Amino acid sequence: MINIIGLGPGDKQQITPLALEALAESDVVAGYTVYIDIIKDLLEGKEVIATPMMQEVERCKMAARAAQGHRKVAMVSSGDAGIYGMAALMIEVCEELGIDEEIRVVPGITAANSAAAVLGAPLTHDFAVISLSNLLTPWEAIEKRLDLASKAGFVIVLYNPTSKKRADFLQKACDLMMKNISGETQCGYVRNIGREGQDHKILALRELRNETVDMFTTIVIGNSTTKVIRGKLVTPRGYRM
Amino acid sequence: MINIIGLGPGDKQQITPLALEALAESDVVAGYTVYIDIIKDLLEGKEVIATPMMQEVERCKMAARAAQGHRKVAMVSSGDAGIYGMAALMIEVCEELGIDEEIRVVPGITAANSAAAVLGAPLTHDFAVISLSNLLTPWEAIEKRLDLASKAGFVIVLYNPTSKKRADFLQKACDLMMKNISGETQCGYVRNIGREGQDHKILALRELRNETVDMFTTIVIGNSTTKVIRGKLVTPRGYRM
Repeated sequence: MINIIGLGPGDKQQITPLALEALAESDVVAGYTVYIDIIKDLLEGKEVIATPMMQEVERCKMAARAAQGHRKVAMVSSGDAGIYGMAALMIEVCEELGIDEEIRVVPGITAANSAAAVLGAPLTHDFAVISLSNLLTPWEAIEKRLDLASKAGFVIVLYNPTSKKRADFLQKACDLMMKNISGETQCGYVRNIGREGQDHKILALRELRNETVDMFTTIVIGNSTTKVIRGKLVTPRGYRM
Repeated sequence: MINIIGLGPGDKQQITPLALEALAESDVVAGYTVYIDIIKDLLEGKEVIATPMMQEVERCKMAARAAQGHRKVAMVSSGDAGIYGMAALMIEVCEELGIDEEIRVVPGITAANSAAAVLGAPLTHDFAVISLSNLLTPWEAIEKRLDLASKAGFVIVLYNPTSKKRADFLQKACDLMMKNISGETQCGYVRNIGREGQDHKILALRELRNETVDMFTTIVIGNSTTKVIRGKLVTPRGYRM
């Protein structure tokens, strides 16, 4: 049995009872070192497979092999393991290795939802979620999605907005979207959601383009109706009062 | 203090401790009758404001007024109250009525995430979330988003796919998307997520167009790489094995 578990934003108060139960029942827990650290007090007596970032395939293979012989394995990640997470890779790896243990995905609260809650209520209308990481996706495909999503009037959530190698990607993304939507479009970002040093800011798209953010930041770009009410970023659903 | 709380898919094991705590601390709990029913054993000693569907504005006004004099109010909804939920309306109503109690959004697991987990791992790449309800959005705007989202290669999640008055909307949506993407695109849907009678199906887009679904159904339309592995709907992230 392999449970692929989302731990939510990082605050233990936002891990679901279902996720905690699946974790408690597991014999082996696998994950990226940083996530393993978050739950280290829950791991007593368990075998732990912690690997650094960029070793996703190897981590999944180790976890899949550990599940053989009906051992219970938990693969953990922050947020929701089904959103840009390890869930798909884990299923692919089990198929590749011919390991036919049962696989279950236990959802968690993903950064789009937790960032929206910190900012106010920007996602009460149709939205698109786009990762700016070009490690696994050609930048041209990302540009096409930014272009069409902003033309379509979606609220847009950006994951992985930056890294050392792509320090100007957020600026490029904002410039591209400003061809379709106003620079006055209201936006917001949240850094270190649910963790020490949580921080957020609400600003216009033309200001966002000049902002320095880090890889622990989630960004929300409003649609044409998004506004700031009492310091909160709000996309009205459209009810008449 | 007003907490706008998402209860997740309906299964109590997926309500976060933060949401339970905010609920326990509240003096008044407001919500749509069906959601109040889910948590009725947690409401002892609390004032309850339960109103039927279609009375969203009135329900928010009642909840906002109940918060005056520093009473703690919880406005509950299923999924995440920030995703097509009451969060934005609640903030707007407080502003309109000049009620300046603190407002906090407590996120929950939204149907996109819980449906994805039931189906497998379809949301491990960029995705768009679109409601097919035209109660508050012109159908032309919905069509534009379906068109551009399918041209952009997003995985697409459909909320509110049907109702009595719009029995053919899913069919229209599928036909529109099939102008841009193959009818063989792998899709899935989940009915009654986290509740009695939970049910799911994986099928091609051309089959989805002829399917009868109800309003408690969440639909996922894959991208061109989405495939079925061991009966699960999987969108590969793109890792090389």
